[in-house]
Amino acid sequence: MKKFYSILILCVASLSLSAQNKHVFPDVEGFLTLKGEMHIHTRFSDGDVWPTSRIDEAYLEGLDVVCITDHIDDRHRRMVKAGLFNCDLNESYRIAEKHGKKRGIIVIHGGEVTRGLPPGHFNTLFVTDNEPIAALNDAEKDHYKAMEASLTEARKQGSFNVWNHPHWSAQAPNETKWFPEHTKLYKKDLMDGIEIYNSCDGYSAEAHQWAIDRNLTLIGGTDFHSPVALEMNFNAGVLRPCTLIFSKERSVEGVKEALQARRTAVYGDGMIYGSEEVLTPLFEASLEMTDVKFHKRSCEITFVNRTNIPIILRKAPDSENVQYKRFLIIYPQETVKYWVGGSEYYGAPLKLDEFDLSFYVENFHTAPQKPLLYRVHLTRPQ
Amino acid sequence: MKKFYSILILCVASLSLSAQNKHVFPDVEGFLTLKGEMHIHTRFSDGDVWPTSRIDEAYLEGLDVVCITDHIDDRHRRMVKAGLFNCDLNESYRIAEKHGKKRGIIVIHGGEVTRGLPPGHFNTLFVTDNEPIAALNDAEKDHYKAMEASLTEARKQGSFNVWNHPHWSAQAPNETKWFPEHTKLYKKDLMDGIEIYNSCDGYSAEAHQWAIDRNLTLIGGTDFHSPVALEMNFNAGVLRPCTLIFSKERSVEGVKEALQARRTAVYGDGMIYGSEEVLTPLFEASLEMTDVKFHKRSCEITFVNRTNIPIILRKAPDSENVQYKRFLIIYPQETVKYWVGGSEYYGAPLKLDEFDLSFYVENFHTAPQKPLLYRVHLTRPQ
Amino acid sequence: MKKFYSILILCVASLSLSAQNKHVFPDVEGFLTLKGEMHIHTRFSDGDVWPTSRIDEAYLEGLDVVCITDHIDDRHRRMVKAGLFNCDLNESYRIAEKHGKKRGIIVIHGGEVTRGLPPGHFNTLFVTDNEPIAALNDAEKDHYKAMEASLTEARKQGSFNVWNHPHWSAQAPNETKWFPEHTKLYKKDLMDGIEIYNSCDGYSAEAHQWAIDRNLTLIGGTDFHSPVALEMNFNAGVLRPCTLIFSKERSVEGVKEALQARRTAVYGDGMIYGSEEVLTPLFEASLEMTDVKFHKRSCEITFVNRTNIPIILRKAPDSENVQYKRFLIIYPQETVKYWVGGSEYYGAPLKLDEFDLSFYVENFHTAPQKPLLYRVHLTRPQ
Amino acid sequence: MKKFYSILILCVASLSLSAQNKHVFPDVEGFLTLKGEMHIHTRFSDGDVWPTSRIDEAYLEGLDVVCITDHIDDRHRRMVKAGLFNCDLNESYRIAEKHGKKRGIIVIHGGEVTRGLPPGHFNTLFVTDNEPIAALNDAEKDHYKAMEASLTEARKQGSFNVWNHPHWSAQAPNETKWFPEHTKLYKKDLMDGIEIYNSCDGYSAEAHQWAIDRNLTLIGGTDFHSPVALEMNFNAGVLRPCTLIFSKERSVEGVKEALQARRTAVYGDGMIYGSEEVLTPLFEASLEMTDVKFHKRSCEITFVNRTNIPIILRKAPDSENVQYKRFLIIYPQETVKYWVGGSEYYGAPLKLDEFDLSFYVENFHTAPQKPLLYRVHLTRPQ
Repeated sequence: MKKFYSILILCVASLSLSAQNKHVFPDVEGFLTLKGEMHIHTRFSDGDVWPTSRIDEAYLEGLDVVCITDHIDDRHRRMVKAGLFNCDLNESYRIAEKHGKKRGIIVIHGGEVTRGLPPGHFNTLFVTDNEPIAALNDAEKDHYKAMEASLTEARKQGSFNVWNHPHWSAQAPNETKWFPEHTKLYKKDLMDGIEIYNSCDGYSAEAHQWAIDRNLTLIGGTDFHSPVALEMNFNAGVLRPCTLIFSKERSVEGVKEALQARRTAVYGDGMIYGSEEVLTPLFEASLEMTDVKFHKRSCEITFVNRTNIPIILRKAPDSENVQYKRFLIIYPQETVKYWVGGSEYYGAPLKLDEFDLSFYVENFHTAPQKPLLYRVHLTRPQ
Repeated sequence: MKKFYSILILCVASLSLSAQNKHVFPDVEGFLTLKGEMHIHTRFSDGDVWPTSRIDEAYLEGLDVVCITDHIDDRHRRMVKAGLFNCDLNESYRIAEKHGKKRGIIVIHGGEVTRGLPPGHFNTLFVTDNEPIAALNDAEKDHYKAMEASLTEARKQGSFNVWNHPHWSAQAPNETKWFPEHTKLYKKDLMDGIEIYNSCDGYSAEAHQWAIDRNLTLIGGTDFHSPVALEMNFNAGVLRPCTLIFSKERSVEGVKEALQARRTAVYGDGMIYGSEEVLTPLFEASLEMTDVKFHKRSCEITFVNRTNIPIILRKAPDSENVQYKRFLIIYPQETVKYWVGGSEYYGAPLKLDEFDLSFYVENFHTAPQKPLLYRVHLTRPQ
Repeated sequence: MKKFYSILILCVASLSLSAQNKHVFPDVEGFLTLKGEMHIHTRFSDGDVWPTSRIDEAYLEGLDVVCITDHIDDRHRRMVKAGLFNCDLNESYRIAEKHGKKRGIIVIHGGEVTRGLPPGHFNTLFVTDNEPIAALNDAEKDHYKAMEASLTEARKQGSFNVWNHPHWSAQAPNETKWFPEHTKLYKKDLMDGIEIYNSCDGYSAEAHQWAIDRNLTLIGGTDFHSPVALEMNFNAGVLRPCTLIFSKERSVEGVKEALQARRTAVYGDGMIYGSEEVLTPLFEASLEMTDVKFHKRSCEITFVNRTNIPIILRKAPDSENVQYKRFLIIYPQETVKYWVGGSEYYGAPLKLDEFDLSFYVENFHTAPQKPLLYRVHLTRPQ
Repeated sequence: MKKFYSILILCVASLSLSAQNKHVFPDVEGFLTLKGEMHIHTRFSDGDVWPTSRIDEAYLEGLDVVCITDHIDDRHRRMVKAGLFNCDLNESYRIAEKHGKKRGIIVIHGGEVTRGLPPGHFNTLFVTDNEPIAALNDAEKDHYKAMEASLTEARKQGSFNVWNHPHWSAQAPNETKWFPEHTKLYKKDLMDGIEIYNSCDGYSAEAHQWAIDRNLTLIGGTDFHSPVALEMNFNAGVLRPCTLIFSKERSVEGVKEALQARRTAVYGDGMIYGSEEVLTPLFEASLEMTDVKFHKRSCEITFVNRTNIPIILRKAPDSENVQYKRFLIIYPQETVKYWVGGSEYYGAPLKLDEFDLSFYVENFHTAPQKPLLYRVHLTRPQ
């Protein structure tokens, strides 16, 4: 018997580590930058991908964390079983978790409580058993009551609860609304995070603002049901939307602590969304200033983009009297020599003994439509 | 002798027609969509690329038009000659034009009149002889007078005059200003177009607004001095900024007529800028609706992106009561099946006998910060 | 309920049709060129991919045919069930076949009879029920007897039988041998085809020669157990090994008729293997001669590579006295202008009124180490 | 004035360091691995690329050395000047050398003595003045005498002489011949190296064998006349043919010493050609064995391909009784976990305490059709 297994391994020997379509973000001072898929489905609800493949996909895309969030109501259980499976609603997690160990992926035990809006869909992460949660959901006709009961049971298990896709075109085709039911759940401390990005309908400015106003953790998830390669255009170089989790350690506990502490940012469609506290260190690690040379009448700065996304800079108005590109895109892994000169047009000190270099980072947003402002003061060494 | 030439041809036989980093835009009703490089330098001023290579670069990137716009002042003439060349200020055009015939590229005879701001730099396109223009520029100390004299001479030759990079960080490090001198030139009818995009500093919202207010032709140029592959990151898939010229024919005259008629749009960094009159037909040709199928309770629309740039759609608020993705990016050459359903959440007619599909095209802007609104009314065939 | 399903469709709307890592081969005179995966595993034996994902992978790579060939012995059945599944050994086929209809993929009902060497592993394609075949295999200790019994039962069901990976490193680490047992099965007409390519160990020259000597159908399979993206380096542009099937129609019956008629070629690692009868029309369709221009003293030929693989040409010695590149690689989708001149070095008629153009196609092999010879006679039109 | 120059620099700030189409080869024990373009033309003979662009092209492709080898006869001088230039036949070198300093490229002063075959074309590298060489070439009608005179003068200047493209289709359309004239030049010690690869006609097995028999330095050159992007299909991922020079230092002198010491290998179309002495250390540095783990009954070896070319391995017959993939391609920058097991089929010691791992490296050839044999003995640590 053993022979066969060792042989099968021989056949998966060749493994690409190429960086295309792979998330690359540096760690930041004091924290690991973990890339997480927070919302995904498998064959064990209405997805058609096996849990091991979900792990392999994440592995190839450079993700560190995968939350298994199959729908956990009875309807989906019936879809799945269809006479084929003998299992409970934790099986997809079990299979994924075992395979995750092989690939070095942190797998989170979760589920999606699925109801009409309001209150809509919620993910419950870090649960221990989906069955009692599903039972409460199935037992109750009223959307709100079923959700409150389910989230309460999940909380007993220690869950972190996320309101999914408030802007989902199927439930909110035109406007994204915060309903009184959401206030209730929020007041009962049953809502910890909110999806400000979901692949069905992209980024939601409304949800982003609510998260800021109510101090909810920013979450981005794909909600994919098919293989990733069918849901995204890899050939166009697309990177999977994900949540950046700034964690003290590479573990389930580390991820949970970071989510509870609101230390996340969301990547989607080339943009990164997060608080200024979180984005400033991420930006400084992402666009490394590897060298600064003062010349007679100019200053030469070398930047290296340490990520796999373009970084877009626009000169901020408060860096007057020095001249440098007013707009620049620094592409993935690209090194740029950046020249700063004094501007005689405004009587600047041409010797450039010291100056402020400041940018708006146009694809790092701290709030809807609000780019991160980055400023550094440079002085000529004596 | 001949033998040698035929042999040399044997050595350039293998020619890539691949589409990477190549501009692809469909023609529009009644016009050819010509892609133009409107501002570029060669070894005959302060660039370090031979004119034939400028043509070959354009050929490989799918451009149709190249304007040779070397600086035409005496300073640059001295730089060039440096004991090496015997030629006048029209030589780079002559060499490029001859090579352009081989590659099927339309070459425009131009030059860049180079002065401090105001008035700054102006391109004179469709001239017949740069020498007298340069002589007038060199003869005059005063920036404005030199420019007015040069543009007047160019106009005598039938030129189309463009104010280059009003936002150039070297001359306008912080703010982009329209000076009284520009009003003078404008009133004397010596300004036909304006660069709203220049690779040094990207897009200028101010210049775009001025163009709209004063009915100036929108121009985008690269202003490249080094080989394109050194100025742009081809490996990151970047496309060269260019001007889309909607021309009645593939000829110098066609290009001139289109520029004078203001039928242009500007491509840069994934965005397209142009008037609603110009962008609406371009969008309809670019995102072709190849099929519409009405199902029992939904409608399936097939879109094909006929360009090499992503097209970014956001659902417009006026398409209420039908549900479809609120945000979608359609990647280059991608085919997308787009589903529209009735939304019971707002009591929509689930049968979907007819409906408005409407989007904001987030990367087609008709004015600063103003996306093109696209609407189509679809009716179920009886 | 329905609402939910229609919504899920909304989430898989964006579908890449890009050509990267996609098989592109033109049809040939009288036949469709179907690209087939002839040997693959799913979660229903020792693979860890769900059957629907196998179909989606094939769809994205431009394949037309997928043969589901899970191991069908009791050992693997036990692996699979492990208390999880309620199904027989035909379930992976049923799931794949249903999903194949959605994607337009032809799915073949098969299985892999798995024994030690000799006789090793055999695929049985076009079966109707794997259970009785497995039962016979399980019932017999002796490798040969078990195989003969299984293949005989499969044949009763109308199967096409393939000897898999004769050169598999696990069973044939150093030399590839045809055993007396294979002669027995062959004489009993239980062997129709043979794998000359298998991803575990690549191409087998020995198997290729045996196929030629015994008129066996040439088969190439991947034998993949993990997701394709883990088994192959997509980022390096690798194309999945496959079998080209020249079929009269796009159907299971068409595929079966083509296999029985030996109308196949095998693609693997940039090479194509097949008989001269099969490769000549494939080559002529793959490298289209789109234009021939006779000039005064040379001839200009335009070739277009209609495939997604490079085509490698070396001048054949029998085209003396004309000069053209002695070696040329024409890359995927590339257009090449090819120049032919008379050679005065050998007193060739410089006027080139007519001549033979002939090549060895270095990556189309009709036998081990034997490139296809292609010759065309061109005459100057009067 | 200065202002303008500093500004122009601002416009070339963004510089791609991406690895696509870039040569990547590691240094080897005791030597730097310099990648050299040994044969290229500029606008100063019959090429149409400016010398600075030749340097920029090489820079972008990761080359370290560029030999400027314009034709140096009077015919080409006339072509060039055509009333445009005032210069001698060393101008292209001077321009390239100056720009090379900016880009960190070593520029070699050379020229191509151009005559009919025999003796054909020769490159003279490391010369000090092309004028006297050209004068001798122009003064003599007889091909051989002109060549001998020119090479003798070049030698006086300290040149390294290379016989170019003996298999050039224009001069040797069918067969590649070593003429008595070549014996004469060889005996007079006027031939140091020979092109075994030239882009016009690819690899020449005959030239390779002559180099081995006569201890000539292996040289590969492109002989490009147009921009590289027109001569090669970058989009297909093609790497420029080049000569790998194993040099003691990064300098003109280092390159010259290495060429004279025959320490070169030639890259072309995915193949590397060189002596066993040269290829063995190159292979060991190129395919790094980063980890070896002995398991209970198998051994797991991690290989990393440190180059930008695929490395192709075929199991060598002398590694019997252990099982591992009989064929494997390791793609650029790829990491592969490689499994070795004992084979019970041949009564191998399953415990694998020690074994030979040996391959033929199918794309590293030490002679025509002769792959490099690589063997390593691995022992289980006690």
